[in-house]
Amino acid sequence: MTETWIAGFLLLLAVGSAPAGRAQNKMSIAEKLGFGRDAKLLIVHADDVGMTHAVNAATIKALESGGVNSASIMVPCPWFPEIAEYAKAHPETDFGLHLTLTSERVYYRWGPVAPRDKVASLVDENGYFWHDWKPTTRIEPREVELELRAQIERAFAMGIRPTHLDSHQYRLYDNGKELFEVLQRIAHEKKLPVFVVRDWFGQHPYLESSLSPVDIVIDHTVTNDPSVRPEKWTDFYRAAIKNLQPGITEFVIHVAFADEEMTAATRERETWGAAWRQRDFDFFTSAEFKQLLKDENIQLVHWRELARAR
Amino acid sequence: MTETWIAGFLLLLAVGSAPAGRAQNKMSIAEKLGFGRDAKLLIVHADDVGMTHAVNAATIKALESGGVNSASIMVPCPWFPEIAEYAKAHPETDFGLHLTLTSERVYYRWGPVAPRDKVASLVDENGYFWHDWKPTTRIEPREVELELRAQIERAFAMGIRPTHLDSHQYRLYDNGKELFEVLQRIAHEKKLPVFVVRDWFGQHPYLESSLSPVDIVIDHTVTNDPSVRPEKWTDFYRAAIKNLQPGITEFVIHVAFADEEMTAATRERETWGAAWRQRDFDFFTSAEFKQLLKDENIQLVHWRELARAR
Repeated sequence: MTETWIAGFLLLLAVGSAPAGRAQNKMSIAEKLGFGRDAKLLIVHADDVGMTHAVNAATIKALESGGVNSASIMVPCPWFPEIAEYAKAHPETDFGLHLTLTSERVYYRWGPVAPRDKVASLVDENGYFWHDWKPTTRIEPREVELELRAQIERAFAMGIRPTHLDSHQYRLYDNGKELFEVLQRIAHEKKLPVFVVRDWFGQHPYLESSLSPVDIVIDHTVTNDPSVRPEKWTDFYRAAIKNLQPGITEFVIHVAFADEEMTAATRERETWGAAWRQRDFDFFTSAEFKQLLKDENIQLVHWRELARAR
Repeated sequence: MTETWIAGFLLLLAVGSAPAGRAQNKMSIAEKLGFGRDAKLLIVHADDVGMTHAVNAATIKALESGGVNSASIMVPCPWFPEIAEYAKAHPETDFGLHLTLTSERVYYRWGPVAPRDKVASLVDENGYFWHDWKPTTRIEPREVELELRAQIERAFAMGIRPTHLDSHQYRLYDNGKELFEVLQRIAHEKKLPVFVVRDWFGQHPYLESSLSPVDIVIDHTVTNDPSVRPEKWTDFYRAAIKNLQPGITEFVIHVAFADEEMTAATRERETWGAAWRQRDFDFFTSAEFKQLLKDENIQLVHWRELARAR
């Protein structure tokens, strides 16, 4: 089965007009949005907004420069009020919520939005979100639901109108059907699309089986990882752009300025650290990136547009 | 009555050896610490540690340079883990807890350590500590007690052994007898001295009447305020040092580096903002400050030493 076909198949389920089958003549999401069936559509998505001021400032600059066209916000983080203020003043900007259940750094930390004693399985002995989830960490889905609802409620209360939902560190995708179904239930209730990628179905079949006909599925995602050496950063993205497949791809990137705050906040390890995020910022705000998009005939789309295909 | 006399009087109550009276021959705290009765003793105290990385970095530098000799830490703030790590590694440093019940900035905020639903009177509609307390804000002393205990518990759990307690924005001194008595009760239980200044008794008589014989009372305090123009900063401190009275004085100062983080965190108003704190850092780490202390024959003391006079 080609990925394009699956997109058509899901869309077909969405419109509910025919039995499941090889309905290759059905419109893809791209087509519903007015693009050709073979269009290469790209979301350039910055994660972790709200985490620090350096992330907020770099994300805003990257959004305003056009190099990044979508981003998602961490409600429990200390700098959330700064980005909430910006989002409220810029309602056209494509901001989702980066639902957060971990506090993965050492010197700078955050905890739940819900009352701590109501989400006891999510917090460590000092009241912060767990630094990491170990195989022995029993995460209660009921408490995940309470916490996600608290984050969404605070976001709306502070003026954000999110265009989509996704999950910090992929926790809600990688930890079993129950947690993914919590996310799906809330997303349907709030009528918000969720970042889900077809390429993940092989590893986690419950992702596919938990989807409903209204759900949007992205075809591919690209993200940098610790195996890419700093001097190969641009090569990595250049290759990803040149090899971009038809359909919808989301680049999951992490931008920040590598200033005193960001360097201190991430100093215990280089992965997703200050220099890493500065490199992402530098590439995606570069003239080369814009030129590559033109050369490869890649169109940018964002979540508010995708939601129209629901 | 002279202030020196009151110090002697309270000490006399503390040792319980004589009836109250004009026991001017009793030892003052200074004398108990081995200084002369007319010694000019100074605590150079940096507030708000843990608030941001810029505050932590500047405070550590000022402590290590010797210009600041005591500081107090805000447990609910996002950068608390960084300073807790430092305090644990430097047990000789004079760190108290800056008990915190407000989140006074706009773009960067924090909330309680206790579960939010257990301290409902302390938080705003978004779950942060109140930006400010209005005359109509009903603060529940029971909830204050719960929150203060949670802050102290987290501090101990994360390795801090505080030398004293004080109160962010003076909330526990300025808002009635009940709140001050909560602080006193906890301080006695934990056997920790509390920053209380004799000069405050006129405005808030309940401070004096709530003290017990074991309590240490500082004679004077000096702090900069918005009436001092930036170009008069050094003049203000120079005059304060030259006019320092015998007894114990605490300079309450606020140091930070005026970098991107601090400037963004405090940008809605200049008072206690990034530039303000940079000026404090600059003065108290200057050669001039050290020379003034020598010229005026001022001795530095800190809270761990004062506690020995209890």
